[in-house]
Amino acid sequence: MNNKQIAIIGTGVIGNGWIVRFLANGFDVVAYDPIDGAEARTKEVIEQAWESVESLGLHTDASHERIRFVSSIEDAVKHADLIQENVPERLDLKQDVLKEIDRFAQKDAIIGSSTSGIKPTELQIKLDHPERLVVAHPFNPVYLLPLVEIVGGKQTTKEMKQAAHDLYEAANMKPMIIEKEIEGFVADRLMEALWREALHLVNDGIATTEEVDKAITYGAGLRWAQMGPFMTFHLAGGKEGMRHMLKQFGPALKLPWTKLEAPELTEDLKERVINGCETHAGDRSVAELEHKRNAFLVQLIDLVEDYWP
Amino acid sequence: MNNKQIAIIGTGVIGNGWIVRFLANGFDVVAYDPIDGAEARTKEVIEQAWESVESLGLHTDASHERIRFVSSIEDAVKHADLIQENVPERLDLKQDVLKEIDRFAQKDAIIGSSTSGIKPTELQIKLDHPERLVVAHPFNPVYLLPLVEIVGGKQTTKEMKQAAHDLYEAANMKPMIIEKEIEGFVADRLMEALWREALHLVNDGIATTEEVDKAITYGAGLRWAQMGPFMTFHLAGGKEGMRHMLKQFGPALKLPWTKLEAPELTEDLKERVINGCETHAGDRSVAELEHKRNAFLVQLIDLVEDYWP
Repeated sequence: MNNKQIAIIGTGVIGNGWIVRFLANGFDVVAYDPIDGAEARTKEVIEQAWESVESLGLHTDASHERIRFVSSIEDAVKHADLIQENVPERLDLKQDVLKEIDRFAQKDAIIGSSTSGIKPTELQIKLDHPERLVVAHPFNPVYLLPLVEIVGGKQTTKEMKQAAHDLYEAANMKPMIIEKEIEGFVADRLMEALWREALHLVNDGIATTEEVDKAITYGAGLRWAQMGPFMTFHLAGGKEGMRHMLKQFGPALKLPWTKLEAPELTEDLKERVINGCETHAGDRSVAELEHKRNAFLVQLIDLVEDYWP
Repeated sequence: MNNKQIAIIGTGVIGNGWIVRFLANGFDVVAYDPIDGAEARTKEVIEQAWESVESLGLHTDASHERIRFVSSIEDAVKHADLIQENVPERLDLKQDVLKEIDRFAQKDAIIGSSTSGIKPTELQIKLDHPERLVVAHPFNPVYLLPLVEIVGGKQTTKEMKQAAHDLYEAANMKPMIIEKEIEGFVADRLMEALWREALHLVNDGIATTEEVDKAITYGAGLRWAQMGPFMTFHLAGGKEGMRHMLKQFGPALKLPWTKLEAPELTEDLKERVINGCETHAGDRSVAELEHKRNAFLVQLIDLVEDYWP
């Protein structure tokens, strides 16, 4: 029996997404949001999303009824093992809400902020117990996409980061601890680069929004569902993988294909990238990975045709 | 019965990918490559790839035996309806090979270059019949990913671009005609922006290559298999879609989340982006699109777990 209790502060799109995920994974949830109609909206979201999380597979103790709405932050957080903060993206507002949470939460409770860009060191400044504050940044829809980026501030302890990692893992997520604080963390920086390039293409009249989208879904998007940019290029390099790719396409980094300037391709960076790919590939040869990639692609293409003909 | 004949000049990774696709779609293929062992290598690739294209579905007249290797460009191209050029990415080399192709090809044959970045206007300069030269840029693996970018040079006619479009469509592809010439065309510019940001993250010690890859495959990658960046944000905007997203996240374009500077978010650009999304969505509401997206995501997540546990 999952005895852990989660408090959700702020029930917008992200807060409600968290509620569905935690309920689906057998947790108790207490929610607070000052806006009128928040509870009714949350019930709507749970109803619409429940079919999806059922298909994915519910925890034995999961119930969409194990949720209570309360009328203060204090009531929401006082018994919680984890408090997830999801208020609008403003530093002053988040700091005030986190201070209130920190005041009433149990000392060893984890506080996770869903912020997409504010550094945890800034979030934890006003807290009496800053050591348990982490950024825990999810992706929409939160109840389906498994990625959550965990970032600690200067005062966050290693133990609390690990505790946070383990708790989100218990909610069937793939938590990724990022040791260095940087705006936008990792995933959003990658998405933002692509997004800005997409805006340039539309702005310069090269492509419509629909053409940009198709350039992704008919091409690289099919690869990115199963492997990221490094592994994709590792496979494009033939037997030698990334080592060969960098030889052949290193010079392309200087081309004006995007206004984003690439870092200098030093020997050190090359080795880091090559070693990274070879470590990730492990004992699987490029040919083996290609074989699996292709089998997956065939299934994926059929799936896309079923849902988006 | 598909009577069209395709000539493949240069049988590296891309050339061989084209061979498999055309054979799988019922075409006759003639190939030429000056390197020793090219024919044996091509046979290997066809063997390894045939299972995948069979699963996807072969044309009634498809046979992996309808391929001949010849010993000159002249013999390869003289009866071809389409000649696909796949020699290394060097302007002078491509210009020379294309000149040779152009000399011996039938006047109304289409010449497609697989170049990833050289402008078609530069490729067609030395040709006697430049009007039939297009860039036809595919994505690896060519026999599975359906996207091909079609770009004409200054001397390419509208009719030849359309003829090229139709022929690649007959090879079960999703051809996209791009009217403006620009380095990297559309898809590679998007991929390059993400790639350079990825390199920065590794270079600055923020993430390993594996962490960057996971940030994609556990997050946005699952969305990009079915919808591009514009439609993804349209859905993230709730009922109002992209209009609301731009209000809420327009300011984020100024943040230093990536060194890539965004274009100015003028009223004109906003309208273009909003109209683009609303046109692409058609009569499907955000809620309907979300519902379909979720159903697809559930299947996709299961699929990923089968192949990449």
